[in-house]
Amino acid sequence: MPPIPSELAFVSFVSVEHMMGLVHHLGIERMLCDLADEIEADFKRWDLFDKTPRVASHSDVGVIELMPTSDGEMYGFKYVNGHPKNTKEGLQTVTAFGLLADVDSGYPKLLSEMTLLTALRTAATSAMAARHLAPKGATTMAMIGNGAQSEFQCLAFKAICGIQTVRLYDIDPNATKKAATNLKGYGLNVVSCRSSEEAIEGAQIITTCTADKQNATILTDNMIGSGVHINAIGGDCPGKTELHRDILLRSDIFVEYPEQTWIEGEIQQLEKTHPTTELWKVITGQVQGRKDAKQITLFDSVGFAIEDFSALRYVHKAIQGTRFFTQLDLLADPDDPRDLFGMLGRSEG
Amino acid sequence: MPPIPSELAFVSFVSVEHMMGLVHHLGIERMLCDLADEIEADFKRWDLFDKTPRVASHSDVGVIELMPTSDGEMYGFKYVNGHPKNTKEGLQTVTAFGLLADVDSGYPKLLSEMTLLTALRTAATSAMAARHLAPKGATTMAMIGNGAQSEFQCLAFKAICGIQTVRLYDIDPNATKKAATNLKGYGLNVVSCRSSEEAIEGAQIITTCTADKQNATILTDNMIGSGVHINAIGGDCPGKTELHRDILLRSDIFVEYPEQTWIEGEIQQLEKTHPTTELWKVITGQVQGRKDAKQITLFDSVGFAIEDFSALRYVHKAIQGTRFFTQLDLLADPDDPRDLFGMLGRSEG
Repeated sequence: MPPIPSELAFVSFVSVEHMMGLVHHLGIERMLCDLADEIEADFKRWDLFDKTPRVASHSDVGVIELMPTSDGEMYGFKYVNGHPKNTKEGLQTVTAFGLLADVDSGYPKLLSEMTLLTALRTAATSAMAARHLAPKGATTMAMIGNGAQSEFQCLAFKAICGIQTVRLYDIDPNATKKAATNLKGYGLNVVSCRSSEEAIEGAQIITTCTADKQNATILTDNMIGSGVHINAIGGDCPGKTELHRDILLRSDIFVEYPEQTWIEGEIQQLEKTHPTTELWKVITGQVQGRKDAKQITLFDSVGFAIEDFSALRYVHKAIQGTRFFTQLDLLADPDDPRDLFGMLGRSEG
Repeated sequence: MPPIPSELAFVSFVSVEHMMGLVHHLGIERMLCDLADEIEADFKRWDLFDKTPRVASHSDVGVIELMPTSDGEMYGFKYVNGHPKNTKEGLQTVTAFGLLADVDSGYPKLLSEMTLLTALRTAATSAMAARHLAPKGATTMAMIGNGAQSEFQCLAFKAICGIQTVRLYDIDPNATKKAATNLKGYGLNVVSCRSSEEAIEGAQIITTCTADKQNATILTDNMIGSGVHINAIGGDCPGKTELHRDILLRSDIFVEYPEQTWIEGEIQQLEKTHPTTELWKVITGQVQGRKDAKQITLFDSVGFAIEDFSALRYVHKAIQGTRFFTQLDLLADPDDPRDLFGMLGRSEG
């Protein structure tokens, strides 16, 4: 029998089933609020983080990316793919997992599924940004694109921004039906719409989250009245945008990490000299977010490694003392660290 | 009870215990030979690979790196840390794990420990390179630095290059004793030495694998006679070298991926115009490796992502039909891929 490895050899593992259990245990709205606070706290100490654009491996049909970051104490990265054609084959467009490690020893501490966690952190980030940018007292949100992310967005805006009504639209009516069904029982007034135009009626916040890998125009300029906040999630890789360029020209644009957003966000469509504001500067109070009731604010969100880092750290804390993780024997831990070969020998027989 | 996820949700996982089991099941020498062949085959199709220098996160005490690559069909990456001070705290200097994914879907297929696997692939790569570079009929190797990698090197050179005698030296005599003890019973003639000078007596191959994160001079110029092959493993990060610069000036230098070796290898000490040869060009026959019996050849090895890729793919094949893996519930797999939220709902209760 192989010797039982020491505690040092183990990495906490949160499976998809564990993550679902954790969400139910905490309650999804509480978890979204907690995540928004955790992400906001990390945006406040933005300068501390080791930031680098994601490392992407592109193919004809999709992309696989690694998104690393570190705050000097912990190191985290996320593996994430984006394959729009996957849904036709019964697979997820996006799957993800992530890791937290201790910077001082380099030892991994947590491995976690991040397909669900990314959906949660993306929604939490959107609502956290809207807390700083959306018009005060907003109660209605248009949700355009009713895919895998849409319900998470709706609940995050309810829990974090006080949205009471969501107006759903998708080119596929079945997607809208699915989202409307899923949102039953959460205390939201859900209105299913037959067009983008109908969906944005009376909405102070417009969230776009569509999936085509092409330059689309989900919203045109004439649709956007003054004073709204646009939360643009779907444009997140080169060649994939959702908004007409003229909307961008009328908006004050807020971004996560400009180096990455210029490549992947809506602002791909603009001259590189166009002004944008980094969200963290609004959160720290260095720059004013929304200045008046007429301003159009646009959060051009592509997702950033720090959001994943915050989410992983939150999960690492949240699972302590619960049954929502197991231990993986991922690390070799010989008695004498130089004796890797000896460990192998002792396991024989 | 949560619904049982479909097959698509699972990723094969090879733990440290599984990897030890696999090594014993196959036999370590056979596994080293197989890995050398697998790595050599990938070096032959070098141009196919997506190559990028590793993505490093440095701290005062160490480094955490991600090493991705892809051959267009499969994508792989390795997480690896390097913390020389760890051994003093009873931890490994290097721990690692790796992942293989399907490029077409972006879905991960294999998660594996790579602390042991890296030790195996590093040794297999060294011996594979020596098969092309070392003097014909070499029977004796000096092994300077008797840490975690040393026994793997000795066995790889026995199995792959026909080495019969290894001459061990380490500044710490206990390390030499450990290596000598571990190597008993493998049919090698093991000689423990009290100095580097003694270790290299009669050796046609000199392997250096020491661990200090500083410019060290394990070998000086006067120690190196004509005709030897030097396999330099230990210099693998900025500021960490093992050989006196004058040795480099007398050697023909072979490297894995020059962009990376200039940063991390022995050639840090040279002008950027100094000639080096990429090992894959020797393996494909485009460039001659060893030209004559007097030439000093130097493999300035820092490790490259393709070697890890080859090793992971080998393990993925080798575990099929064995008990040396489990299935991890790492990927969310909702019935309808757009219905991530619905999956969460159905898991409740």
